[in-house]
Amino acid sequence: MEKPYVIGIDIGGTNTVFGVVDARGTILHSGSIKTGTHEDVNDYITLLANGLKEVIEQAGGPGNIKGIGVGAPNGNYFNGCIEFAPNLPWKGKIPLAQLISDKTYNIPVSLTNDANAAAIGEMTYGAARGLKDFIEITLGTGVGSGIVIGGVLVYGHDGFAGELGHVIMRQDGRLCGCGRHGCLEAYASATGVARTAREVLTNRTEKSLLRDLNPELITSKDVYDAAVKGDMLAIEIFEFTGKILGEALANFVAFSSPEAIILFGGLTKSGDLILNPVKRSMEDNMLKVFQGKTKLLVSQLKESDAAVLGASALGWEVKEG
Amino acid sequence: MEKPYVIGIDIGGTNTVFGVVDARGTILHSGSIKTGTHEDVNDYITLLANGLKEVIEQAGGPGNIKGIGVGAPNGNYFNGCIEFAPNLPWKGKIPLAQLISDKTYNIPVSLTNDANAAAIGEMTYGAARGLKDFIEITLGTGVGSGIVIGGVLVYGHDGFAGELGHVIMRQDGRLCGCGRHGCLEAYASATGVARTAREVLTNRTEKSLLRDLNPELITSKDVYDAAVKGDMLAIEIFEFTGKILGEALANFVAFSSPEAIILFGGLTKSGDLILNPVKRSMEDNMLKVFQGKTKLLVSQLKESDAAVLGASALGWEVKEG
Repeated sequence: MEKPYVIGIDIGGTNTVFGVVDARGTILHSGSIKTGTHEDVNDYITLLANGLKEVIEQAGGPGNIKGIGVGAPNGNYFNGCIEFAPNLPWKGKIPLAQLISDKTYNIPVSLTNDANAAAIGEMTYGAARGLKDFIEITLGTGVGSGIVIGGVLVYGHDGFAGELGHVIMRQDGRLCGCGRHGCLEAYASATGVARTAREVLTNRTEKSLLRDLNPELITSKDVYDAAVKGDMLAIEIFEFTGKILGEALANFVAFSSPEAIILFGGLTKSGDLILNPVKRSMEDNMLKVFQGKTKLLVSQLKESDAAVLGASALGWEVKEG
Repeated sequence: MEKPYVIGIDIGGTNTVFGVVDARGTILHSGSIKTGTHEDVNDYITLLANGLKEVIEQAGGPGNIKGIGVGAPNGNYFNGCIEFAPNLPWKGKIPLAQLISDKTYNIPVSLTNDANAAAIGEMTYGAARGLKDFIEITLGTGVGSGIVIGGVLVYGHDGFAGELGHVIMRQDGRLCGCGRHGCLEAYASATGVARTAREVLTNRTEKSLLRDLNPELITSKDVYDAAVKGDMLAIEIFEFTGKILGEALANFVAFSSPEAIILFGGLTKSGDLILNPVKRSMEDNMLKVFQGKTKLLVSQLKESDAAVLGASALGWEVKEG
């Protein structure tokens, strides 16, 4: 009989969250541990394996678990390693998939980065069910992407394909965390929106609710709250963000001509305030042959569960040992 | 026994060229007809079919032909139609693959655009033999592309994926033939290079061999001839072209992380004059994780044969009826 469950593990800089998931995308049992406090990766793995064993027990034992999927920053699907992840405490190349499997009943473990995991999760449980060609764009602290072509996630020759947050949208534009200038991420991430807010408040003289806040502490949520109240500068900040993101999406369509682009993450909570400008800019910048054909959708993965669900979806794809 | 030959047909605005090709990429028998003089597509097809029958006869009859591949502007692989091709005499949607097959012993016919055909040709007979992940960029009058991921050409959900000549590289940049502004094609095509030459000659005062020519008639070949003689403005024109093309390639790598990017077409004859600036700019603009990993190669398809070879390669992939 087919094993009924998989496990998803989402490794973030602060917390590692995991859960047992069924075929319909319901998280049955879950747990979490701290990530950043374990300088030695072996201590971390021991603690993680103990947590996993607890939820596996609750799910009826290892015989019920088909596979374990891990979403982690800089995770390489091909070799199961985390490679030089700037926000994790372990340096160099860590064979994480192997380490986890060794301490968890040798259940097969598959690993990729968080945005790829989100795309697979979307295809398995979310807005991309039934789609063969789509691009998932994750709009969080950074901007990530997972590209699916013909029903298969694109990993590229080295496992690192789909870094669409780092296409350069503006020559000599904003400095990005990656050290280069003008990346999409420097504009369309939550921090990019906050940065646009500070620029607009400095360069313009109009009144704005945002002027009541400490500019250094403004968040994209603050911009949303102001925009909802009709604040013109806040609305303009979303327009600017949407314009650049839409330009980028039009270029992505010229690449793989997907049936849909699916936006995921905090920024999508701003709804039409951000979606309308994105959609307009995407269509305006699109080559004629593509116009009106690519749907712009919002993720259907519940955000609190999405990271674990996305990672878990990889668990269905493992080759059983 | 496996049928030993395929036929490639390259449909250009002026001429249609075709040939019988063996598995090693040798063109055994070939012919051509005019394209543009036949307003009625049925007249064109009749003439083409007669030409095909001649070469098929020379190759020992239809029993020796596995399939026919067609490379044509705006060719859609999924439905075998040419759709609204601006440089061909037939308007609207023409079911070309079906029309050809009907008049040519019902041999199965597969059709795609010329850049996709070039990519498949490269993979079958050229510099991409053995590669699973690469991007072919055709630098001619326009800029086209064929993207191969996991050994399979990317068609997208509608058959039109891989229009990388029309990613926008400069907001509000040069007007492109597609009606939008700042497309890669407006800079990196042969006509783009000529346009850069005219701009440079207008905006600058330095002496240049190019000043002896009628600016309206300057070609990329003229720029090459001047650059070879050490003409500084001509060299600068290639530097500028290479810079923008390299920026674009760096963005493409962030998408599919290919093992190689293969440049095809007239501009590559300028050799290191164009390749060095492209390579430098590509590496300079690349996200760190990709640096130094993607090879920049020049097509190994002989240019006079490349279009027919590329199209013929599709013939190996047809499902036999």
